[in-house]
Amino acid sequence: MADKADRMKARLPRGFVDRHAADIRAVDAMTARIREVYELYGFEPVEQPMVEYTDALGKFLPDQDRPNEGVFSFQDDDEQWLSLRYDLTAPLARFVAENFEQLPKPYRSYRQGWVFRNEKPGPGRFRQFMQFDADIVGTPGVAADAEMAMMMADTLEAVGIKRGDYVIRVNNRKVLDGVLEAIGLGGDENAGRRLTVLRAIDKLDKFGSDGVRLLLGKGRLDESGDFTKGAGLDEDQTALVLSVVTGVPRELLKGPVPRDMWDGVQNQMDKTGRPQTGWRISRDFDSDILNEGLSELAIIDRLVIDSGYLDRIRIDPSVVRGLEYYTGPVYEAELLFEVPNEKGEIVRFGSVAGGGRYDGLVSRFRGEPVPATGFSIGVSRLTAALKNLGKLDASDVVAPVVVLVMDKDTEALGRYQKMVASLRQAGIRAEMYLGGSGMKAQMKYADRRGSPCVVIQGGDELEKGEVQIKDLVAGAKAAEAITDNTEWRESRPAQFSVPVDELVEAVRKVLADQAAERDQ
Amino acid sequence: MADKADRMKARLPRGFVDRHAADIRAVDAMTARIREVYELYGFEPVEQPMVEYTDALGKFLPDQDRPNEGVFSFQDDDEQWLSLRYDLTAPLARFVAENFEQLPKPYRSYRQGWVFRNEKPGPGRFRQFMQFDADIVGTPGVAADAEMAMMMADTLEAVGIKRGDYVIRVNNRKVLDGVLEAIGLGGDENAGRRLTVLRAIDKLDKFGSDGVRLLLGKGRLDESGDFTKGAGLDEDQTALVLSVVTGVPRELLKGPVPRDMWDGVQNQMDKTGRPQTGWRISRDFDSDILNEGLSELAIIDRLVIDSGYLDRIRIDPSVVRGLEYYTGPVYEAELLFEVPNEKGEIVRFGSVAGGGRYDGLVSRFRGEPVPATGFSIGVSRLTAALKNLGKLDASDVVAPVVVLVMDKDTEALGRYQKMVASLRQAGIRAEMYLGGSGMKAQMKYADRRGSPCVVIQGGDELEKGEVQIKDLVAGAKAAEAITDNTEWRESRPAQFSVPVDELVEAVRKVLADQAAERDQ
Repeated sequence: MADKADRMKARLPRGFVDRHAADIRAVDAMTARIREVYELYGFEPVEQPMVEYTDALGKFLPDQDRPNEGVFSFQDDDEQWLSLRYDLTAPLARFVAENFEQLPKPYRSYRQGWVFRNEKPGPGRFRQFMQFDADIVGTPGVAADAEMAMMMADTLEAVGIKRGDYVIRVNNRKVLDGVLEAIGLGGDENAGRRLTVLRAIDKLDKFGSDGVRLLLGKGRLDESGDFTKGAGLDEDQTALVLSVVTGVPRELLKGPVPRDMWDGVQNQMDKTGRPQTGWRISRDFDSDILNEGLSELAIIDRLVIDSGYLDRIRIDPSVVRGLEYYTGPVYEAELLFEVPNEKGEIVRFGSVAGGGRYDGLVSRFRGEPVPATGFSIGVSRLTAALKNLGKLDASDVVAPVVVLVMDKDTEALGRYQKMVASLRQAGIRAEMYLGGSGMKAQMKYADRRGSPCVVIQGGDELEKGEVQIKDLVAGAKAAEAITDNTEWRESRPAQFSVPVDELVEAVRKVLADQAAERDQ
Repeated sequence: MADKADRMKARLPRGFVDRHAADIRAVDAMTARIREVYELYGFEPVEQPMVEYTDALGKFLPDQDRPNEGVFSFQDDDEQWLSLRYDLTAPLARFVAENFEQLPKPYRSYRQGWVFRNEKPGPGRFRQFMQFDADIVGTPGVAADAEMAMMMADTLEAVGIKRGDYVIRVNNRKVLDGVLEAIGLGGDENAGRRLTVLRAIDKLDKFGSDGVRLLLGKGRLDESGDFTKGAGLDEDQTALVLSVVTGVPRELLKGPVPRDMWDGVQNQMDKTGRPQTGWRISRDFDSDILNEGLSELAIIDRLVIDSGYLDRIRIDPSVVRGLEYYTGPVYEAELLFEVPNEKGEIVRFGSVAGGGRYDGLVSRFRGEPVPATGFSIGVSRLTAALKNLGKLDASDVVAPVVVLVMDKDTEALGRYQKMVASLRQAGIRAEMYLGGSGMKAQMKYADRRGSPCVVIQGGDELEKGEVQIKDLVAGAKAAEAITDNTEWRESRPAQFSVPVDELVEAVRKVLADQAAERDQ
């Protein structure tokens, strides 16, 4: 034991958190339901380790021999750089490339796991967090992307989010790529500027069109005085980009709306809302990549409508997703309801899952085209949303029955332990009090655990061959019901004795009575 | 896409592995059963992150400013050293110390998670592996250690290991500490030598008494010519240590044996096998710490006998456990059966779980005594053992039904996707083939997935409003039963057509027939 002077301070590293029982149980219950949906869709579990070669993650700094600061990295004893994975997609790409011949193709897989970001932590931003991914590798057809969007919708409903309380928004990077090409931002030499444009558009939700207009142009000064350099587009270019990416107005995201409401991208439909002539763009310019993107969106839209997802999945040109590696359709799940958080503030949860087509990631290793599409669920974010909806109540976990220790000699301990064993054999959570303290502390412990009842056998009870059972729920109610005390006590006694061999039966009855009361 | 010349090699870092579907499902099924037992014992889940401050893990090299090479470490941007956890105990100790006031005490908790060792990998030795821990913090009484031993036994039976096929062996570090003190190896200045003695004894299983005798004395030369320096005990000292730690003979570990069979440590018992006078040591010397250790063992033995674990939990002085931080009772679960491994070699699985009392770990942070006891299950090892026993069969997971793509226009895709959606709504795993290949490749894909059947709708079937269902299991059997082909086909057709709106019902029947056949 360290003395006060040189003892160590117990502290979590910044950006990391401990997980408590209620959270673990809630996440387990939620991910079990997610898993069921993915299995139903024909996906199989597969998992990669947390550590990969840094180069396999694509995380070396350009022209440097040193990993990107955004990932946690360390050198192996053979000097090669290793990193903690920052998402589940890059390791999957490595896995598929390494085991390509053995896998059925298209390869449908899912995985749940922790990922790590070596970034500045902030409120709700952690350096270790959980993702739940599903991917289809080996098919170029956008039917796969359509299926992913449908699976997102089914997943949200499976975890308890009502239809109408969410929307799956789908776009295609090729539309934006076509527009950027048309305004002279094509080619490798403009990759950096394209990324700046992408990230600017990704801020539409946060800053609105006016803010994004600044980010597309010269730059934006925020309230704290920080200046973000813009993409340097001129006014015409900015206007064109904005006209294409302006999304479905928020008030129209909920419920069935005609699909030709947008400013920039439009579609002809028949009376059933079925696209007839494919998507088109209102401005008059032509680009192969843009037209390809629009046709793909038309196919996706048709498939989701045919499969009965008309009101749940929406083509929306404002969706871009922040990651560089997407090459085609991108999609995200957005929650539409607003709820008060723990502090009573109104919160919109926004995006809880997102993904898209990444045709380049596996190809990097294979030297041949390996198309792929997939998405990630942000597990903490979705859990937080469900908690707010009251959909993740862990209160049906009953705390253990506590057998109190009235005598401390080994023989008495043996008797108490035997009672505990008999309760457990009957499937009842139970424990013997293991601390060194007296009756009062033991009762306080049982209270703190939320125990349904305690079992007591002191000298008197031992002599009579009995145990005493204190029903802590009834006891608390009796204490509350001061005005009508007598009547309550009669309806269910808070404390009673039974012969030792009727212990299990008596405890079972207490638990059943309490469960019936909770259900009322 | 990278061309052949500069493309990256997809490779796993040394000592890390990918996990496939069968393994993930097997571990999930097993850990669910473990969790049930721990919950029954009143334990609550709690989890710490993978990353901790290196000093909180106690993993700085002595007198150096650099972490132990055995852990993966990296510096945070404020220069503080972080490490990946190497077990689940040190992070729990940090957690309890940090949240001491908020926790009920004694604090019963469990956790499952990955741990990391920066060591040379070898066969069955990985640098990332999974542990499943349970701990009770805050009680000095060895009733807690007794309960841990009983929980180990219940856990092994819950996952499918028969009584008699395992034993829980219990010892106490204080016995050995007392002996070492008596032969002049007490005190801080001998800590290093005591650790060498400990590690030597831990090799009893591997090298036998003769090998350990060498390791306790001058040292041992192994077959490869490597010399391991010994603890430097003289002959008398070595003999005394060996007499105390020589364990229960292997052939007596199975089945009920009298508890006074050992050479060194003995016990008086009445006819029921109940310890009467406490444990004693046959050699004539006295040590307070040794006597304390023996009394604690007597209490544990009594409690496990009273609770009905006589033949499952055994006091065994050869158990020491390799970790330095244990301060009292230590216990481990050993599997006794021998089975052939995948290569046909006979394997004894040995220890699959172990732990003990670590009264110093939390105290390090708190500056006050915080006693604790707990153990770890080696998840991979236990999974491997259960697989060998045939207890983790994942073959009841039925592969998805595949709807083949006969026409590739969007309208046809919509029809197929709708069939898939209707199957899924009925709870049947199903998918539309998403590759670009023809009929033959699609059938091969369904075979590879192990699909129960495929659904086909080409032009002819569409015209008639029908779908064709090919039962792949019946098909394979029919192909096998060449001599009696006709009769088989009559008993269950491998291929048949139904109206589209009877698709779900027909597939459900195929699955039910196949399930009934598997059960036979």
